[in-house]
Amino acid sequence: MDAKVIWQGRMSFNGRADSGLDIPLGTDPSVGGDNDGARPMELFAIGLAGCTAMDVISILQKKRMGVTEFEVQAHVERADEHPKVFTHIVLEYVVYGHEIKEDAVVRAIELSATRYCPAHAMMEKVCPIEIKYHIYEEKDGGDRSLVVSGEFTP
Amino acid sequence: MDAKVIWQGRMSFNGRADSGLDIPLGTDPSVGGDNDGARPMELFAIGLAGCTAMDVISILQKKRMGVTEFEVQAHVERADEHPKVFTHIVLEYVVYGHEIKEDAVVRAIELSATRYCPAHAMMEKVCPIEIKYHIYEEKDGGDRSLVVSGEFTP
Repeated sequence: MDAKVIWQGRMSFNGRADSGLDIPLGTDPSVGGDNDGARPMELFAIGLAGCTAMDVISILQKKRMGVTEFEVQAHVERADEHPKVFTHIVLEYVVYGHEIKEDAVVRAIELSATRYCPAHAMMEKVCPIEIKYHIYEEKDGGDRSLVVSGEFTP
Repeated sequence: MDAKVIWQGRMSFNGRADSGLDIPLGTDPSVGGDNDGARPMELFAIGLAGCTAMDVISILQKKRMGVTEFEVQAHVERADEHPKVFTHIVLEYVVYGHEIKEDAVVRAIELSATRYCPAHAMMEKVCPIEIKYHIYEEKDGGDRSLVVSGEFTP
């Protein structure tokens, strides 16, 4: 896999990898930037959430779970001193749908964390990763009710 | 730092972190995707290249080097088996400008790699990272000539 970032002046860059999508990178005015793109370290958090999210939705669909909405959040703590590495990550999976089985969700997350997701395998060498999940029942009329929440460390 | 990815159907997600930039994530049709966004693992490579690129351009500008163009490439090898983690990274820095000093470029890269860049500090826990650099002299009329190339491991 190849990626590159091309300087656009000041602290702005354009990033691109094999898939061809242009990703503007920028930084904060307090460090000379123009707030005109993603911060590089944000891409690690989005990449981690996206990588495991693709595993989990793929597994839940194979198990014919009726997922209607789904998101994964990454909550990241970083060191105060340079280099400001990640020191703690909480991955929070939120699943909406009809009669979603908790054990199917837990098993899908476990499979991603321990077998399939390269981002998880790489980041757990950097810092601890905790898992939280919430399953909501989607009701007629658009209402939703929380069925169950849980947390574990894979 | 918080990030999240929201499911858009099939294998497509929209990613966003604190800076607010929307980053579409997608995957290959061979694994059920629609090729409609960046692959999650590409974000790690772009994030790494972008993080160190911001350090290096910032240092070179403080040293009043006359940089006219600048890019950083990340060449990544990955494991064949799941989870397909990064196994080797080459970071290649290409600097164009007027009378750019090699020792300034090398020192800027070293400072990023060993002190400032969280992405480098995190990824070197995952796999070896090699550095290559090329410095070009920008001539009148737009011609360029390679002045020097080098490589090292920080």
